[in-house]
Amino acid sequence: MFERLCIIGIGLIGGSIAKAARAEGLCQQVVALGREKNLPNMQRALELGVVDAVYTDTARAMAGTDCVIICTPVGSMQAIFTQLKPYWNPQTLYSDAGSTKGSVVEAARAVFGDVPSNFVPAHPIAGAERSGVEAAKVDLYKNRRLIMTPLSSTDAGAVDKLGEFWRRIGSSVSVMTVEHHDTVLAATSHLPHILAFALVGMLGRKDEQREIFKYAAGGFKDFSRIASSDPTMWQDICLANKQEIIPLIQQFQAELGRIEQLLLRDNASGLFDAFSYAKQARQRFLETFDDPT
Amino acid sequence: MFERLCIIGIGLIGGSIAKAARAEGLCQQVVALGREKNLPNMQRALELGVVDAVYTDTARAMAGTDCVIICTPVGSMQAIFTQLKPYWNPQTLYSDAGSTKGSVVEAARAVFGDVPSNFVPAHPIAGAERSGVEAAKVDLYKNRRLIMTPLSSTDAGAVDKLGEFWRRIGSSVSVMTVEHHDTVLAATSHLPHILAFALVGMLGRKDEQREIFKYAAGGFKDFSRIASSDPTMWQDICLANKQEIIPLIQQFQAELGRIEQLLLRDNASGLFDAFSYAKQARQRFLETFDDPT
Repeated sequence: MFERLCIIGIGLIGGSIAKAARAEGLCQQVVALGREKNLPNMQRALELGVVDAVYTDTARAMAGTDCVIICTPVGSMQAIFTQLKPYWNPQTLYSDAGSTKGSVVEAARAVFGDVPSNFVPAHPIAGAERSGVEAAKVDLYKNRRLIMTPLSSTDAGAVDKLGEFWRRIGSSVSVMTVEHHDTVLAATSHLPHILAFALVGMLGRKDEQREIFKYAAGGFKDFSRIASSDPTMWQDICLANKQEIIPLIQQFQAELGRIEQLLLRDNASGLFDAFSYAKQARQRFLETFDDPT
Repeated sequence: MFERLCIIGIGLIGGSIAKAARAEGLCQQVVALGREKNLPNMQRALELGVVDAVYTDTARAMAGTDCVIICTPVGSMQAIFTQLKPYWNPQTLYSDAGSTKGSVVEAARAVFGDVPSNFVPAHPIAGAERSGVEAAKVDLYKNRRLIMTPLSSTDAGAVDKLGEFWRRIGSSVSVMTVEHHDTVLAATSHLPHILAFALVGMLGRKDEQREIFKYAAGGFKDFSRIASSDPTMWQDICLANKQEIIPLIQQFQAELGRIEQLLLRDNASGLFDAFSYAKQARQRFLETFDDPT
């Protein structure tokens, strides 16, 4: 599909895209572009055979590149667009893998005035609490959903070709608006991460005073897994989508307030109803999750 | 160790104790006692070979029984003690597997005046979102913690013998006060379950209006697993330990309020610090969890 794919930010996400693109024969060459301070990680990507070459120089990285995928934390998108602007090529396709889309589009607008028609914002919904290129997996996107959020000004050909690219690395591609994406992901991903970070932080402080983690069970292990996610990435995501996240935090506090009232009033049937509804809702989620096509 | 072990409430918890006790040769016979309405489940336990006999008649179940373990939801403890009282045998050892201990001790006190010295409250910290005897596993308690909460009036010989029993089915046994148990478990188990039920309930209502579960990822699957727990069991636990749980709900709301403030003020470093602390705390938990001895 492409002569040369350039990944900016060769960590878990970018490294897994590189591996999958190579495995599926979607490009002749894969290269990484990054900053000096990321050279050790990029060298590791080279040693592991995840990429064919690594660059810290933008001009050299862009020469001959016909597809660029930006895989850095969403807070650095504006800096990346600024860096790419002098070399922006109308013949090249651009996409990203950011977990928020409104902030990415805003960053593009801030740098280019209008969002370039050959940039197709995307979000592969896959990840893990691990990070770094060593954690990259060729099948990270297999049978996982990917959302593309083209604007009305986005080139239809670019959407088609990048959609094809994502599908061929195994994703089930959906298209929706930027706003819808950010609303849905705030609920299903950003809020749960905040709850996990908040809970584990709160219990961590208790544990420093009197050991409690020792008596936590497997349920807690699963519940808290996402609190092991990368703090920089999540600081960026939370700030980038705070307009959607803050109202959800408030809704959740109200939800907890209702449970507190049920407890105060010894309302057993109210608790039973709330817990049963949640159990059924999770069953519905599981049926959806097991079949992402 | 015992001639005849009687399990009251032969579901996941009781069934797993029965299987393990039998596998380890800790009793000649295992029987189940339950109500008429639970006969189908008890018959299933019989068919599966989990128990040797099932009873709905307390007198017959207790005849020849020298160890009784109560594995019903904690809300029914007082009714069970009332049912056992006429047949209470000073030579028999009694224990339970309830997730709250204060309420169990209170139920015993309400029925017997004083908590009988041959009753040793216990809580095996293991479980799963599945329930019922079909889900019972011989190794459910292997390498899992178990907390015994004897009172000052509890017979030391009973504590020793039951401690030995729990250890031989694979548990790592700790002894602590009833109050300490209920404080610790409210934080590491009861609050996380409430958060999971509350979140999945809230998202379930959103999903009914506009599909969102479709776009949830593996992180959400793990985070929400405990929301598939048994609603009756959790209604009972939450009410039984509400004195400990309610202040934790309030602390957690305050914790969320702090994150909300960091978002409102675009305080990136504050978010980074909070998330990093949580990530490190979880690492500490994982190191504890992997080595429960």
